[in-house]
Amino acid sequence: MSNPSFNLLKGKRGIIFGALNEQSIAWKVAERAHEEGATFTLTNAPIALRMGEINNLAEKCNAQVIPADATSLEDLENLFSQSMEILGGKIDFVLHSIGMSPNVRKGKHYTDTNYDFFHKTLDISALSFHKTMQTALKLDALNEWGSVVALSYIAAQRVFPDYNDMADAKSLLESIGRSFGYQLGVSKKVRVNTISQSPTMTTAGSGVKGFDGFISYADEMSPLGNAGAIDCANYCITMFSDLTKYVTMQNLFHDGGFSNTGVSQKVIDRFNG
Amino acid sequence: MSNPSFNLLKGKRGIIFGALNEQSIAWKVAERAHEEGATFTLTNAPIALRMGEINNLAEKCNAQVIPADATSLEDLENLFSQSMEILGGKIDFVLHSIGMSPNVRKGKHYTDTNYDFFHKTLDISALSFHKTMQTALKLDALNEWGSVVALSYIAAQRVFPDYNDMADAKSLLESIGRSFGYQLGVSKKVRVNTISQSPTMTTAGSGVKGFDGFISYADEMSPLGNAGAIDCANYCITMFSDLTKYVTMQNLFHDGGFSNTGVSQKVIDRFNG
Amino acid sequence: MSNPSFNLLKGKRGIIFGALNEQSIAWKVAERAHEEGATFTLTNAPIALRMGEINNLAEKCNAQVIPADATSLEDLENLFSQSMEILGGKIDFVLHSIGMSPNVRKGKHYTDTNYDFFHKTLDISALSFHKTMQTALKLDALNEWGSVVALSYIAAQRVFPDYNDMADAKSLLESIGRSFGYQLGVSKKVRVNTISQSPTMTTAGSGVKGFDGFISYADEMSPLGNAGAIDCANYCITMFSDLTKYVTMQNLFHDGGFSNTGVSQKVIDRFNG
Amino acid sequence: MSNPSFNLLKGKRGIIFGALNEQSIAWKVAERAHEEGATFTLTNAPIALRMGEINNLAEKCNAQVIPADATSLEDLENLFSQSMEILGGKIDFVLHSIGMSPNVRKGKHYTDTNYDFFHKTLDISALSFHKTMQTALKLDALNEWGSVVALSYIAAQRVFPDYNDMADAKSLLESIGRSFGYQLGVSKKVRVNTISQSPTMTTAGSGVKGFDGFISYADEMSPLGNAGAIDCANYCITMFSDLTKYVTMQNLFHDGGFSNTGVSQKVIDRFNG
Repeated sequence: MSNPSFNLLKGKRGIIFGALNEQSIAWKVAERAHEEGATFTLTNAPIALRMGEINNLAEKCNAQVIPADATSLEDLENLFSQSMEILGGKIDFVLHSIGMSPNVRKGKHYTDTNYDFFHKTLDISALSFHKTMQTALKLDALNEWGSVVALSYIAAQRVFPDYNDMADAKSLLESIGRSFGYQLGVSKKVRVNTISQSPTMTTAGSGVKGFDGFISYADEMSPLGNAGAIDCANYCITMFSDLTKYVTMQNLFHDGGFSNTGVSQKVIDRFNG
Repeated sequence: MSNPSFNLLKGKRGIIFGALNEQSIAWKVAERAHEEGATFTLTNAPIALRMGEINNLAEKCNAQVIPADATSLEDLENLFSQSMEILGGKIDFVLHSIGMSPNVRKGKHYTDTNYDFFHKTLDISALSFHKTMQTALKLDALNEWGSVVALSYIAAQRVFPDYNDMADAKSLLESIGRSFGYQLGVSKKVRVNTISQSPTMTTAGSGVKGFDGFISYADEMSPLGNAGAIDCANYCITMFSDLTKYVTMQNLFHDGGFSNTGVSQKVIDRFNG
Repeated sequence: MSNPSFNLLKGKRGIIFGALNEQSIAWKVAERAHEEGATFTLTNAPIALRMGEINNLAEKCNAQVIPADATSLEDLENLFSQSMEILGGKIDFVLHSIGMSPNVRKGKHYTDTNYDFFHKTLDISALSFHKTMQTALKLDALNEWGSVVALSYIAAQRVFPDYNDMADAKSLLESIGRSFGYQLGVSKKVRVNTISQSPTMTTAGSGVKGFDGFISYADEMSPLGNAGAIDCANYCITMFSDLTKYVTMQNLFHDGGFSNTGVSQKVIDRFNG
Repeated sequence: MSNPSFNLLKGKRGIIFGALNEQSIAWKVAERAHEEGATFTLTNAPIALRMGEINNLAEKCNAQVIPADATSLEDLENLFSQSMEILGGKIDFVLHSIGMSPNVRKGKHYTDTNYDFFHKTLDISALSFHKTMQTALKLDALNEWGSVVALSYIAAQRVFPDYNDMADAKSLLESIGRSFGYQLGVSKKVRVNTISQSPTMTTAGSGVKGFDGFISYADEMSPLGNAGAIDCANYCITMFSDLTKYVTMQNLFHDGGFSNTGVSQKVIDRFNG
């Protein structure tokens, strides 16, 4: 199935963080942004670049890859400077799709957390978003009415036991979105939002314990079922377009209705008889 | 087990709507308010009075029963006037525990609603709260720092399919709590809140289809389990006391943690193997 | 300034309620939907049709006007039946932009409400949304992945004193959006959302007391300033498009950041020296 | 004016963090907890102990002071062990009233943040809450139905420009409250909540730029006016009592209605001629 193309991002320049492989939401966003007429650079941590297949994507999208550790101000400065040079002007959209928890990786329970790991989780998954925007602002790298989006998850609002310290990191991420969204709004007319996506079978998602059961649960709880990666990409495109200029500082649920469903008939049926 | 008694409501005068029988939350509130030193009147719709055993409660609490249809301004005026006369002064606290949906009773599905019934649901379950406060304000019947509480349910925020038009009525109820809470706060230093209680096995609750399975689900989803009627009564007591004077226009979840739990281990275990 | 056009709604059929004159958001939505390739019918209450200039719009958009009182099931049935016939198939999108409060019109204060008026406010401004969807479902008039949007306002969550019983009506409207969104999602893969728009200088808005000062306040509080009617129309277009298929049961703030701003520098400056 | 006393905490043992001087909310909580029959230890960072007048409080409340840096697991372990020994059993309630931002202190703007400072803000103001609960759980130091409360602020939800990175820290704090509240609920029947208090003229509060104007703004926006420190203390007492056993994982606004007021008449009057 080929995707629709509307030229929604014609002439826009972007930076896309976090495309690892075809399962990645960021990968789909890149493909869709390309189809919609945008030019952009791709970036990921050096180690992720080695593991992933990002060069295939880069070729397909006619995009350059710029390695950057999103926790390093130096790397971010280089990323924005180079991107502006390569793309020939200021940036119109940024996708932040970054999250990692050493506590999750090492199997540390939330009640037995390692606090150095916890700081690392926050640094990689949340402060990197602040660093990205602070760097962009310092370099005056964003065009007016530009759009910055980070991907989040509803664990920021409600507890999902296995989500561990990533839940707290997502809360912090969303708060940074609001806080910096105010600043960028007032000074640059740039908007900042987070998209809270259904659980998605990406490489990142599949690291979480019991993820299959959880995906099923979320799917049964969502009136429309779980939103897929390509749907999320489409939604990101609308948020980067000029059609959503006054949406800012929001956390937007893209989840088939999960967030506002107390219980679905399918789930409650498991408790009846 | 006897309840604690702290004299928290010593000298306070109240009106308690909705005590039908021993299962009623309002019944427990009356018992606890009595133990805490309050005097109050009890009220219910004439038809509910015939069905219920409220006289036993009235005797136990040394309270008078004043019949009132909570949708009738005339009845409400009589209720407040008589209550002030009987209790010897203005009112310090009001409990609104009223809800009824003809659509639920008649088994009309939410997508096949009868709109006359829907208006009735709203009138009885939500506008009655506005009428109660408007009447109290007109009669200048509330003491400064008085406290008005209505019982609500999380269906006001999230969909529980069988809850039908009561969900919308609870949303309206909570909105009226905020709207009138502003007015009573500014003009009379009176606070207004709604308490969003766990599903409770009362006569009202048991009218809802599949309620047993639903109670189990909520219990498994709540880290502390479902809150009971007596616990809700205790919480109401704190909200009527002078210790919560600056809490107003809030919807307060009293639900063992249900509202902020995305999924519990117990529930997800049903989806894992 | 001409608007962008992306063919986002090519081949889609819609019904647009509430276009009164050029200031109306619904008017802008119609213009934009036309530019984006949709065909649709326009509807409004017979009395509004007499006051308004909808025929100019209809001509411009090559759309037929079907009078309908949105509180009348008969009128709504006729509206959907005729629309399907005229447009040649089931409906893909519906815009509900309807609100009216007799209490506001007659200058009744919120604490001196007329309850017949209050019911009318709820019927016109909120239950009409339920009636629209119930009718559509009964006639099986909506295509899969169709999109239903109603316009709301943040008074549904927070108190704005002069907004009167419209605040409660908007709460009810949003609840109905969630409740019916669940039903339409499960049975028809149709999504339902409300868009909570900045205060807008429409004919409806200008009926509210002190509206000029209020518009200024909201503008100063919003990092991007108030969202205009045309911006709201653009946002509606994205919600009708296939790019937002998994967004449902949400209340989406389109307000320049007002909703998540506790206070702006501009506003606080009025309190400092 | 003497405070009420109801013996609400008779027989309960607690730990109170953060009493610096008479303006501190924690100070008032200690006084009130003492009046209500609790025994407890007081703790603060060694440097704060030198600055403050905590010994006066300790004497008045017949409480011992145990210095602890709330970011040090060793100190926290010592605090809980010693407290259990001194008080003669497990702990029933904990108040966490800790917050500090080096970025605020050094006058670093939110868009020119120092990230080492930012981590420190998070460590002191939010992770210390996790550390406190993790330590308590490891030592099995909490009684069933114990109650843990941390003080928060609405900047966790909405932007107040001068609140800087403390806003993000409060978001993280509230998330940790939910996350750990789930864990302590399931395993120990202990509840965890945050209280989101009006801006309060404490030593901590007065460090924030333009705080006077801000206090006035909040006061005018709150239908009941700003909640004072003593009122907050009273509210904490109810949350520590057995009357609120099923309230958990909540963020409870104690703010005179600020959080649900979109605008007050007083504030809007400044915008109307």
